[in-house]
Amino acid sequence: MRTEHDSLGSLSVPRNAYYGIHTVRARDNFSGTSYLNDHELIKNYLKVKLACVRANQQAGNWKNKHIPAAISQACQDLLTNFDKYVDEFALPAIQGGAGTSTNMNVNEVIANHAVEILGGKKGDYQLVNPNDDVNKSQSTNDTYPTAGHLTLIQLTGALLQTLEEVIATIERLAFQNSETLKMGRTQLEDAIPTTFGRSFGAYASLLARDLKRLKVSRSELLTIPLGGTAIGTSLTATHDYLTFVIGELRKITLLPVQRCEDLVDGVQNTDEYVHLSNTYKSLAVDLSKICNDLRLLGSGPQDGLGELNLPQRQAGSSIMPGKVNPVIPEFVTQISYQVIGHDTTITMASEAGQLELNAFEPVMFFDLFDDARLLNSALRTLNDHCLKGITVNKKRCRQMVETSAEAATALSPLLGYETVSQLIKEALREQRPIRELVGNRLSGSQLDKALSPKAFFVK
Amino acid sequence: MRTEHDSLGSLSVPRNAYYGIHTVRARDNFSGTSYLNDHELIKNYLKVKLACVRANQQAGNWKNKHIPAAISQACQDLLTNFDKYVDEFALPAIQGGAGTSTNMNVNEVIANHAVEILGGKKGDYQLVNPNDDVNKSQSTNDTYPTAGHLTLIQLTGALLQTLEEVIATIERLAFQNSETLKMGRTQLEDAIPTTFGRSFGAYASLLARDLKRLKVSRSELLTIPLGGTAIGTSLTATHDYLTFVIGELRKITLLPVQRCEDLVDGVQNTDEYVHLSNTYKSLAVDLSKICNDLRLLGSGPQDGLGELNLPQRQAGSSIMPGKVNPVIPEFVTQISYQVIGHDTTITMASEAGQLELNAFEPVMFFDLFDDARLLNSALRTLNDHCLKGITVNKKRCRQMVETSAEAATALSPLLGYETVSQLIKEALREQRPIRELVGNRLSGSQLDKALSPKAFFVK
Amino acid sequence: MRTEHDSLGSLSVPRNAYYGIHTVRARDNFSGTSYLNDHELIKNYLKVKLACVRANQQAGNWKNKHIPAAISQACQDLLTNFDKYVDEFALPAIQGGAGTSTNMNVNEVIANHAVEILGGKKGDYQLVNPNDDVNKSQSTNDTYPTAGHLTLIQLTGALLQTLEEVIATIERLAFQNSETLKMGRTQLEDAIPTTFGRSFGAYASLLARDLKRLKVSRSELLTIPLGGTAIGTSLTATHDYLTFVIGELRKITLLPVQRCEDLVDGVQNTDEYVHLSNTYKSLAVDLSKICNDLRLLGSGPQDGLGELNLPQRQAGSSIMPGKVNPVIPEFVTQISYQVIGHDTTITMASEAGQLELNAFEPVMFFDLFDDARLLNSALRTLNDHCLKGITVNKKRCRQMVETSAEAATALSPLLGYETVSQLIKEALREQRPIRELVGNRLSGSQLDKALSPKAFFVK
Amino acid sequence: MRTEHDSLGSLSVPRNAYYGIHTVRARDNFSGTSYLNDHELIKNYLKVKLACVRANQQAGNWKNKHIPAAISQACQDLLTNFDKYVDEFALPAIQGGAGTSTNMNVNEVIANHAVEILGGKKGDYQLVNPNDDVNKSQSTNDTYPTAGHLTLIQLTGALLQTLEEVIATIERLAFQNSETLKMGRTQLEDAIPTTFGRSFGAYASLLARDLKRLKVSRSELLTIPLGGTAIGTSLTATHDYLTFVIGELRKITLLPVQRCEDLVDGVQNTDEYVHLSNTYKSLAVDLSKICNDLRLLGSGPQDGLGELNLPQRQAGSSIMPGKVNPVIPEFVTQISYQVIGHDTTITMASEAGQLELNAFEPVMFFDLFDDARLLNSALRTLNDHCLKGITVNKKRCRQMVETSAEAATALSPLLGYETVSQLIKEALREQRPIRELVGNRLSGSQLDKALSPKAFFVK
Repeated sequence: MRTEHDSLGSLSVPRNAYYGIHTVRARDNFSGTSYLNDHELIKNYLKVKLACVRANQQAGNWKNKHIPAAISQACQDLLTNFDKYVDEFALPAIQGGAGTSTNMNVNEVIANHAVEILGGKKGDYQLVNPNDDVNKSQSTNDTYPTAGHLTLIQLTGALLQTLEEVIATIERLAFQNSETLKMGRTQLEDAIPTTFGRSFGAYASLLARDLKRLKVSRSELLTIPLGGTAIGTSLTATHDYLTFVIGELRKITLLPVQRCEDLVDGVQNTDEYVHLSNTYKSLAVDLSKICNDLRLLGSGPQDGLGELNLPQRQAGSSIMPGKVNPVIPEFVTQISYQVIGHDTTITMASEAGQLELNAFEPVMFFDLFDDARLLNSALRTLNDHCLKGITVNKKRCRQMVETSAEAATALSPLLGYETVSQLIKEALREQRPIRELVGNRLSGSQLDKALSPKAFFVK
Repeated sequence: MRTEHDSLGSLSVPRNAYYGIHTVRARDNFSGTSYLNDHELIKNYLKVKLACVRANQQAGNWKNKHIPAAISQACQDLLTNFDKYVDEFALPAIQGGAGTSTNMNVNEVIANHAVEILGGKKGDYQLVNPNDDVNKSQSTNDTYPTAGHLTLIQLTGALLQTLEEVIATIERLAFQNSETLKMGRTQLEDAIPTTFGRSFGAYASLLARDLKRLKVSRSELLTIPLGGTAIGTSLTATHDYLTFVIGELRKITLLPVQRCEDLVDGVQNTDEYVHLSNTYKSLAVDLSKICNDLRLLGSGPQDGLGELNLPQRQAGSSIMPGKVNPVIPEFVTQISYQVIGHDTTITMASEAGQLELNAFEPVMFFDLFDDARLLNSALRTLNDHCLKGITVNKKRCRQMVETSAEAATALSPLLGYETVSQLIKEALREQRPIRELVGNRLSGSQLDKALSPKAFFVK
Repeated sequence: MRTEHDSLGSLSVPRNAYYGIHTVRARDNFSGTSYLNDHELIKNYLKVKLACVRANQQAGNWKNKHIPAAISQACQDLLTNFDKYVDEFALPAIQGGAGTSTNMNVNEVIANHAVEILGGKKGDYQLVNPNDDVNKSQSTNDTYPTAGHLTLIQLTGALLQTLEEVIATIERLAFQNSETLKMGRTQLEDAIPTTFGRSFGAYASLLARDLKRLKVSRSELLTIPLGGTAIGTSLTATHDYLTFVIGELRKITLLPVQRCEDLVDGVQNTDEYVHLSNTYKSLAVDLSKICNDLRLLGSGPQDGLGELNLPQRQAGSSIMPGKVNPVIPEFVTQISYQVIGHDTTITMASEAGQLELNAFEPVMFFDLFDDARLLNSALRTLNDHCLKGITVNKKRCRQMVETSAEAATALSPLLGYETVSQLIKEALREQRPIRELVGNRLSGSQLDKALSPKAFFVK
Repeated sequence: MRTEHDSLGSLSVPRNAYYGIHTVRARDNFSGTSYLNDHELIKNYLKVKLACVRANQQAGNWKNKHIPAAISQACQDLLTNFDKYVDEFALPAIQGGAGTSTNMNVNEVIANHAVEILGGKKGDYQLVNPNDDVNKSQSTNDTYPTAGHLTLIQLTGALLQTLEEVIATIERLAFQNSETLKMGRTQLEDAIPTTFGRSFGAYASLLARDLKRLKVSRSELLTIPLGGTAIGTSLTATHDYLTFVIGELRKITLLPVQRCEDLVDGVQNTDEYVHLSNTYKSLAVDLSKICNDLRLLGSGPQDGLGELNLPQRQAGSSIMPGKVNPVIPEFVTQISYQVIGHDTTITMASEAGQLELNAFEPVMFFDLFDDARLLNSALRTLNDHCLKGITVNKKRCRQMVETSAEAATALSPLLGYETVSQLIKEALREQRPIRELVGNRLSGSQLDKALSPKAFFVK
């Protein structure tokens, strides 16, 4: 063990650890939960640190060149060989302190790595200091949200790709079933015929809007508060540093990030996270609606609607032989509820922010990262294990349409609402076909035209 | 107009108004919403005031007897002829100030009424003062929650009665259908036969627990902070007053109210409202679950499950003749969602309380009063317009049971899970009855016994 | 009373009522709640009906001209003299049936008015039929959401205007206080100096994003499903009608509405309501955050932060003389919680939509209309009764900055994090000024420069 | 690899795996999330299986004795050496299928273990069959909730213990500060003096109610649906088995579990989970309220309220030297928001249950287990790292009380509300002490008595 000290006193740190006293304290303070910091967040934090050291170097903020060189090299090595160092960053994700522990953890690991590069021993912060050197011109206030934005941009990007695949699969189903007539239902009651093409088409249209909204929410995140330092004042940051740092980050991430115009606002407010959570929630709501429909339409096989055949994925019961359940849509709906629940958490965390900083960013990040991964997984699963293998039970669909009394709605313009109303009641009561009951009120060709499948296609 | 003044200055008040300057300011401040204070809340506040004046009188807190006599008379008259004075209390329900406006509104109306009883003119607070006399030994901190508790006890009591009626109706349905076989479904897929008696029975069991929980939540409200005055310190209240006031309130309300042991806690914390909201929410969740089932089981009439016939309440469509929708369950589900949403509001309001007082009680009261009324209305409607008229489509139910392949689950103990699994798959594929496929694996009497309706009754 | 009949039977209707049997049934079915249909919704529905009758007329969908003429005239009269007819539309807002009752109520009132115009007596639907004539080429499925969209566009428009005023007021406060130094705080702990200009500026920046997002959500609503009729199939609508109807609505509303490309999707999905609710919720979160800050910064007057003087709006206590509370921010926060709670309701209602229609639109509309009005009222109140009168307690602010040890952060780049850390601890412990403790580590001019107010201004 | 087959086909399973084909399919189906089944849930499931095999054995449900003996031995070994087998149970926690995958995973691992005990090779289900033997007389429908109940009873029990410790610590703080005068505040504005004893006492009273409610919710879980098998019908379970099984489980768990009276209800409804979540949520709300207060009262150190000194746990900033933040209360509040968010998830999952089974139990379990652990961790941390080390800044508290104008409220009964109101306004305006302004309106001894600390103690 080696001994490190800070303003609160001194503490033992494992001799081989790259992390330092702040990390030890934080692990102890928030030890109760099993959730650790997201790896992508750490990687992005390392990229931010790399951008900062480069900008500081260009701004001439060190007298000698070897400190920034060592820090740069440390950042690059940590990024390249991340798996080797991953345990150094094993810090609880939900933490007090508004992300300071995460920032200091990263600062300490980089510092000790740089110290070694310069031939020192871990803990010899005279050579490279976690605060004065690695954190130079920075605060947790501006770097933590910046790393968070980068992570969310990345995770949302992956989500968008999977969502696009899902939409494509659904569009294919729509195309394949453009002429498959089926009964439409409103409020679970028989309405008029429609086609499965339209049903799937409506799902595709819905998800396409979610896609569009996600892109907007994601693009908001390109605006970052880097350079704001403490409470957005840029205190301790030099003018030259501020000039260079965003450009450096752009080079490293290849993302068109830009500094927010009002840094005080950028550091203090968390509305972009609420907005992103809103959008995730909207997607979750829509996915669950679609999955609820799939379960309904696939219900049976004998005593349900039975219009869709969902791919059979696993035996459905430990006691009921031959039973198969819609496990994939059920999985997706549960994921959706989890995401919707997180939105409540994020909403409360954002509302509770006070004055110059929101202390509750860690739980917002934790839930948003989780949301993005959960939704991505739900979409992937839905696409590969369900949507791609769906087939339509065309025979059953046709049968329902043909015997449906409510299809007589198409006769309303000819006979009037009230007359048709009586015909339908009679048809249901006597279980006779509408055609028969219409009698000579209409000619055969009138009937054929009104009740032909084409009559129920969208104009 | 007459002129009144307070510590902020002076203001015109309509000459005939019983309310005074505080009410005028409050109306102006919170004028934007259309929701006014609940009448029952005001009536209960008047009862609290009556208990307080009686306790103060007994404690000898006035030198002369005519002031308390006039205040008592005013309270009684306002209660007896409430409708006549109702506009005096037209104050926005959602208000800043933690209920002070409501308390002062009541104080002012009582004071001016008492002033008139003593022969004075409205506004002549030398005779009876809203603060020093009507509010004597009291604070909004203790009287406002007390009036709120009384109102919630009352509204929840009414709710309990209607809930009991609903449970009785469902139990009747269960009794009537104790031998009506039907298919059970898990995850919307065909499971094994059950009876409608059990289905309704399970609803009754569920709601009976909600009833029990509601009673517990309601009984918690009998503990009141009256006597705590400012922040629960009892400042300005005399010992004798404290001795008498709860007993007086008991006499007036005929409720076994008792003072909370820790008055500081009683004034400050709002957990009892969250607890009540939780219980309302639980009831809402369960009601909506039941109504969702009713809609599913009643879906059709041709192309749905069609097992239940819900009473037809109104034409279902402006365009589709003969269509009838399950409007009552849909109404109940929407009420349920509203109540669940209110729980989010109440949760946030309670969490945001600070230090010695929660400033957000008004919105909690508003939502809780609304919840109780909404749920009561939903239950009443459900009972009278839906449950009472439900009939079972026994023919369809029997048909489904008889043709169901999954009923073969009952053969598992005889043939083993895997064999039965193959039989069911074959039955579904070839659309042949299980009995036929079993062949000579079992004797006829074994089959009869295993697949008889009785086999599917709860042991 | 007159007798009317529908497919369920016959019923008495008050002889003078313009509404008919459907309205009577619906009032009875959903009578339990006190919330009635929004007047703006009804007015917009009348405009939709006017557009439809004009389009039908142009499309030649009546053989004679007097029916459409009478319907047109009826719509116009009802709109022009709405207050006179308002009781005809007194229908519960939360209703089962997905809006059919509202549509039929409007159809019936228009029909009976048109019947009178044509010289008939109310109820004589041979002359003008609510379904076949007034509802011609329409369904509740497409007209109800269209009327809802128009209402939300209007209410959100009004909200936007008030929000713009609030932003302007805050920007004025920011401008006026651009050089007013004050202590910044992170996590409620003393951070470094900032200015009130920046604090207010950050609020303005935040709300400006909400404004932008609201505009996006509002513009989404311009896409309407009118013409979709039953489940988006356009069944019963003629090609010519479809060609004309959107243009007619554009002329009447002066809004650039357009038909959605996928009518099935437009009728079925309710994501635009969730999206709007999300945006209202985001605004609510941000407003509440700002108001929480105002309450904190204005706390005291003696034993709180005391940096801001909020306008005194009403006496704060019935028992504590001279007390004044931040009633306006408290009002706004409660409104915010209500809006956030509604978002839970709307989220659940949208997720629960099934197949070709969401049966729960009425509660979504009810809450969204309420949200828009509540937020508008909160913003108006906040602007007029609080923000406009806020003053800064500059003396107290300056004092805090001057005695703050944490301001020594500015010395970090000169002395290093650790040294300054020790200096601050010493300053706090011994209650001595930092300047004194720095001693000759820095020259006077270095100190002056580092600790001057300008050092704490954003670069 | 070995080959296994089920009704859907055959699949390769790692030769050494105790799990079988169902587990392989389920891992594949729900592979996207990183959350695995809770270990305690699995252990409790093993206990349920042990009780079932014993009951089946006693009921004579096997012809030979070696199968039940092997199953019993397998269950016991798996429980005793759980860590050795833990990877066999590595199944995603959030899963479709209502827990069937978890049940089958447990069935397969037990079966293969028992097969080996009987000298067979893994996969040789002729010897011991996962369905016919291990799952004998059982369904996922009854065993999965039973295992869930046991787990929640256990986790909630641990939570109760920690909560009791927290209450004891707070009561100690209350006792120690029973005479420490401090300013009370309502709505963040100066109210009247109180003591820190009362403040802490109110927290203890609040949490004591949460403790009581948790005990009630926990005791509800002792009622279990074991024996219900498929949809609560007890199909495939013999009378003797039903007689024995609960008693066996009681012996194994040492818990007074009992079978629910209505098994159909017990299998179908999930209200006990909502109720438990409600109670967790209530605790979360109250913990966060207390922590918000701690942060406020400890704010500063110079420019906040500064009444409490919270233990310093870690350096508070990477850039601001000497800064220390209230990281523990911030941690607790974030945990609270997470728990509150989960309540939304659980509420939605419960409401979405359909007909004879709720398909969404897995996500409810996942969140409830998480809640119990998170709250336990938050309480432990709060107790050990914050509450135990809190000290009161008595000097500052006394100072505030002594100079407070609002303390003059105590003079109201002597001078009247309005007069005191003027005195307080004057005191604030001229910054003079109240005593001075009272002049000869009251005698010195009257003033002494009214303003003495004792006057502000609860009567």
